[in-house]
Amino acid sequence: MVNVGIVGATGYTGIELLRLLLQHPETVVRTVTSRGEAGRRLDDLFPTLRGYTDLSFVAPSDADLQSCDIVFFATPHNVAMRSVPELLAAGVRVIDLSADYRLRDPDLWSEWYGEPHASPELCAQAVYGLPEMNRGDIAAAQLVASPGCYPTAVQLGFLPLLAAGCVDAMQLIASCASGVSGAGRQGKIPGLLSEAGENFKAYGVTGHRHLPEIEQGLGQMSASPVQLTFVPHLAPMNRGILATLFGRLQAEVDDLQALFEAHYREEPFVDVLPSGQQPETRHVRGSNRCQIAVSRPQGRDTVVVTAAIDNLDKGASGQAVQVMNIMLELPETCGLDSIPVAP
Amino acid sequence: MVNVGIVGATGYTGIELLRLLLQHPETVVRTVTSRGEAGRRLDDLFPTLRGYTDLSFVAPSDADLQSCDIVFFATPHNVAMRSVPELLAAGVRVIDLSADYRLRDPDLWSEWYGEPHASPELCAQAVYGLPEMNRGDIAAAQLVASPGCYPTAVQLGFLPLLAAGCVDAMQLIASCASGVSGAGRQGKIPGLLSEAGENFKAYGVTGHRHLPEIEQGLGQMSASPVQLTFVPHLAPMNRGILATLFGRLQAEVDDLQALFEAHYREEPFVDVLPSGQQPETRHVRGSNRCQIAVSRPQGRDTVVVTAAIDNLDKGASGQAVQVMNIMLELPETCGLDSIPVAP
Amino acid sequence: MVNVGIVGATGYTGIELLRLLLQHPETVVRTVTSRGEAGRRLDDLFPTLRGYTDLSFVAPSDADLQSCDIVFFATPHNVAMRSVPELLAAGVRVIDLSADYRLRDPDLWSEWYGEPHASPELCAQAVYGLPEMNRGDIAAAQLVASPGCYPTAVQLGFLPLLAAGCVDAMQLIASCASGVSGAGRQGKIPGLLSEAGENFKAYGVTGHRHLPEIEQGLGQMSASPVQLTFVPHLAPMNRGILATLFGRLQAEVDDLQALFEAHYREEPFVDVLPSGQQPETRHVRGSNRCQIAVSRPQGRDTVVVTAAIDNLDKGASGQAVQVMNIMLELPETCGLDSIPVAP
Amino acid sequence: MVNVGIVGATGYTGIELLRLLLQHPETVVRTVTSRGEAGRRLDDLFPTLRGYTDLSFVAPSDADLQSCDIVFFATPHNVAMRSVPELLAAGVRVIDLSADYRLRDPDLWSEWYGEPHASPELCAQAVYGLPEMNRGDIAAAQLVASPGCYPTAVQLGFLPLLAAGCVDAMQLIASCASGVSGAGRQGKIPGLLSEAGENFKAYGVTGHRHLPEIEQGLGQMSASPVQLTFVPHLAPMNRGILATLFGRLQAEVDDLQALFEAHYREEPFVDVLPSGQQPETRHVRGSNRCQIAVSRPQGRDTVVVTAAIDNLDKGASGQAVQVMNIMLELPETCGLDSIPVAP
Repeated sequence: MVNVGIVGATGYTGIELLRLLLQHPETVVRTVTSRGEAGRRLDDLFPTLRGYTDLSFVAPSDADLQSCDIVFFATPHNVAMRSVPELLAAGVRVIDLSADYRLRDPDLWSEWYGEPHASPELCAQAVYGLPEMNRGDIAAAQLVASPGCYPTAVQLGFLPLLAAGCVDAMQLIASCASGVSGAGRQGKIPGLLSEAGENFKAYGVTGHRHLPEIEQGLGQMSASPVQLTFVPHLAPMNRGILATLFGRLQAEVDDLQALFEAHYREEPFVDVLPSGQQPETRHVRGSNRCQIAVSRPQGRDTVVVTAAIDNLDKGASGQAVQVMNIMLELPETCGLDSIPVAP
Repeated sequence: MVNVGIVGATGYTGIELLRLLLQHPETVVRTVTSRGEAGRRLDDLFPTLRGYTDLSFVAPSDADLQSCDIVFFATPHNVAMRSVPELLAAGVRVIDLSADYRLRDPDLWSEWYGEPHASPELCAQAVYGLPEMNRGDIAAAQLVASPGCYPTAVQLGFLPLLAAGCVDAMQLIASCASGVSGAGRQGKIPGLLSEAGENFKAYGVTGHRHLPEIEQGLGQMSASPVQLTFVPHLAPMNRGILATLFGRLQAEVDDLQALFEAHYREEPFVDVLPSGQQPETRHVRGSNRCQIAVSRPQGRDTVVVTAAIDNLDKGASGQAVQVMNIMLELPETCGLDSIPVAP
Repeated sequence: MVNVGIVGATGYTGIELLRLLLQHPETVVRTVTSRGEAGRRLDDLFPTLRGYTDLSFVAPSDADLQSCDIVFFATPHNVAMRSVPELLAAGVRVIDLSADYRLRDPDLWSEWYGEPHASPELCAQAVYGLPEMNRGDIAAAQLVASPGCYPTAVQLGFLPLLAAGCVDAMQLIASCASGVSGAGRQGKIPGLLSEAGENFKAYGVTGHRHLPEIEQGLGQMSASPVQLTFVPHLAPMNRGILATLFGRLQAEVDDLQALFEAHYREEPFVDVLPSGQQPETRHVRGSNRCQIAVSRPQGRDTVVVTAAIDNLDKGASGQAVQVMNIMLELPETCGLDSIPVAP
Repeated sequence: MVNVGIVGATGYTGIELLRLLLQHPETVVRTVTSRGEAGRRLDDLFPTLRGYTDLSFVAPSDADLQSCDIVFFATPHNVAMRSVPELLAAGVRVIDLSADYRLRDPDLWSEWYGEPHASPELCAQAVYGLPEMNRGDIAAAQLVASPGCYPTAVQLGFLPLLAAGCVDAMQLIASCASGVSGAGRQGKIPGLLSEAGENFKAYGVTGHRHLPEIEQGLGQMSASPVQLTFVPHLAPMNRGILATLFGRLQAEVDDLQALFEAHYREEPFVDVLPSGQQPETRHVRGSNRCQIAVSRPQGRDTVVVTAAIDNLDKGASGQAVQVMNIMLELPETCGLDSIPVAP
């Protein structure tokens, strides 16, 4: 059994990570830290865990993370980058669900996050944890930066098109909608049911922090330079992201459906839907799946890709467990194979 | 006082039209028809109307529509086109909220609706009821085709850009989200809370019936031919449409914000938000307003417009009342000036 | 025109009060205070007000409340009781939407609110603003304590039964559900859509602050002592309260329906539904109405009353405006007669 | 492995049963019937099942149910009672999720369902499948009537009180709220998001079909005759039931909390919460758990019990699988032990 630790598990990615790891057949959760909830039983804060764990949150200073095999950071940005160097030095492998190591360029990171990076030397060393792009590097990595939720959906949707070089990489458009849990478990007015319920809005139009992460990833996929227009929206629901992507065809493609099916044939968590079906966020809720459809309306030159994920699973904690499975040479679906609850 | 009749008021546009007309200071609702609910009091079907009307639904065959000054059709498509010719002949003015007269070309109508048009000779005569485009023609019209919900939001968003000729009209993209009431008050499984709640999906990607209507309208605005990629989505809410629009700049524009503000300065129902704010569907719920924002992310060549309306108001019944006000030479905001309920 | 001031209008009762007063034909909103938002335009915080007011929030210290005819307090408890004495002394009439003056006994108030009352001498003088009980006293009052949301629904539901003396006043039960806006516009985790959405729970079972207020009111209605078991619930919606009330019949009643209809015949805002219909919160949303039904399941000895209100209207701001109308000898429905928006 | 068949799996209990049985370590789903969807792949109707089954729906006439070890009926009432006799005669064991065999008295059944019972001789033979009451009989049963959703929550909540004889069985009150999925996957207007969303209402106040089932069960628990006032409500959510129960204490109880904890100590799916906590429907969503709290507000004579279940799990399909486990002498939690998804 693999000993894992979790730093900062009081948020939504934290509780989802706990759910997955407590049921994972190959892991034992050894320690879970929290600054604010130290001493409190996990199942007191999260009653869904009653009967599944007797652990209590531990103050970061009291946690013995160095004896863990793998440590997950489920913290806001700006925490992992201060603690990771020491853990790596102790031989611990780290999967960071926060934004701290997602950008290879620490200056770009500073620009978007408004402060210097605390361990810039690790930015280039960290492996970007999108298995569908970087499976090999992940297997060997000591530090993995687990991708953001929007970036996962957008990259998986554009990947086959960019790999095939058939759309103009300078004219990419992503119109995405997310559930409210993406904003985290924090007491802020915009996340209230009375504010976010029965409402739909765009936000971050002039610049969302996921933009540079996505462009970095798309740039890796594309032979030519990339420009993305990215508009996220807040949908009145808890979980789920749908990315609706638009690309301008620059080369004739016989069969877009076949292109996507071929690209993802071996992927355990990317499900290219039969032609004519559309992904829905409810069909991947609580699962690590990404469901994708591609179409070319009216046979014109704009291709439309839709990709649905659960922002807390394939967009965060599920993907982090998939990454862990790869790092541990376990079957990739280990602990991630339960059927989504519907309706 | 103006005598009005409503054909088919048992749906969501019908109840909204009733709400507006029963409170309108210049109208008296004389007769309301329904095939299925004939004989039933309106306030029995719609308890919100208790105390505001003693009317009952009348069977179409028993309704004296010809003595009305104005008749509204709040029916599914395929009803108005059979009854309107006779009403026009009797001198009644008609505002059709259905799709029957929205396309000027009856052959195009037949192609999208799968049957011959029953009164094709009226298609070119009907005035398309978007006041911000056709105010003058509406005032003089005997037959007005009130626009669809998506078409209203998309056209109002693109109008200043196309009028100024600053975007490539062949590369327009509209990614829109609608509440469930847009599908009507019909007992169908996809509209159930258990299906549509906590879910977000695209639909009609390969061809939605609002596409030809929108392209016809955009074509009227644009000096050059138009092609639109239109992807509607279903959001887990009751009311509201947000249109997120993407245009490719082809001419330098000094100040997009100023362009939009100037274009809509005189419009009573189009509210260009201050720079930096984004429209939200909740802020126009139950009102006839369209709130609009324009931006140019990262200063690149793609301009993003967001436009929010209530699909049942500016997207249907509110707009129909605005049209009526214009036809009757009343102040345009008459009966349409109440503050939206929030939260 | 009547000059009104509002203290603390940044919450949900505040925005609802603004909506009603800005549209009220007999009032002018002169000043609106806020500690946290001083200097900010109202319509910047609440975009639904765009076009309806040019006011900005004023710091309490800068507000000229004494020149107002009527001042509303839409504050949390513990604010009004410090400022009201001075206003009364200046001859201003006050309608307090908070809990400060709802209990006649300041010691009971201290017990439930955990601190001494700041102006205990006013507690007995303040008129409890439930028009259906205290219309006469309200008309003459200088200080009115506007009732809480649960108390309004529960009292209106029990009133005809207690006035008729036909249920055992010592065995009253109220099982109530409220929308989330009842918890106020505050950034707290339990109100997040991700927490309160898709969820139903009881809370405050062992003692909710509305209990003494309700028992005080029921006691006024009943010839004999009263005991109420009160269980509030949180429903996954924004607005609305449904009170489901159970009483044990102790005297034979010929016709409960007739009893309720007779009791409320003259009330403009209490709508006793026809036998067989049930109130729904959506049918009173955004309106000052209370819809009520009474039944006696299986002809047994337990009578069931259901009463629906909008917690922000008849449960707060609408009722406060009704109270104001009474104080000003205006028609009671003045500014409160718009049809609820449905769906 | 145990061969199971499912009759009528196109509804919400059907898809939930499929989810549980397809993942159950000891069962193989052999055949799934549907009148309306025969020939269609299960995962085409229910995309969450993609990758988990290759089965298609089979017409009832073509299904080989008699070779199954266990057959589940997930049909509306009025179907099982016609087919079950033949299956029993063939030696198949049957778990009926419908209402057909829940009442022991076929005349009472006819009274509430408005038609004669088709196999009345089986009504007394069928075992009522509430494991917490009838575990022994279930183990030996050939035909089990799986309880309704409301009845499960209400009976589990009252059971310890009635078994201890400490409340007046003639004055029981149940105020319950259910999510919309309880009404089934049927295209009916009241279940639309536009109708049921942002709304709360009581229904069936004068007589709901679950009343006789609950009273029959409570009667079995109680030494004295039982009368229940039962008011169900519809909450604007998909899944979940909360039963709020009121009982009149007739004997002094030292410690209600201890009474409940002792009663359910050995039950794998009944979780008596620590004193001071309240059950929430989200904490049992997608799980077979019932969470319960008991309290005695103000130390008065009315005891309040709250019990939360997932109406599709402990209230339907989860309970049916629990019943199957008992019948097969498997561990009772087999296939039912996954952590609920939160948030």
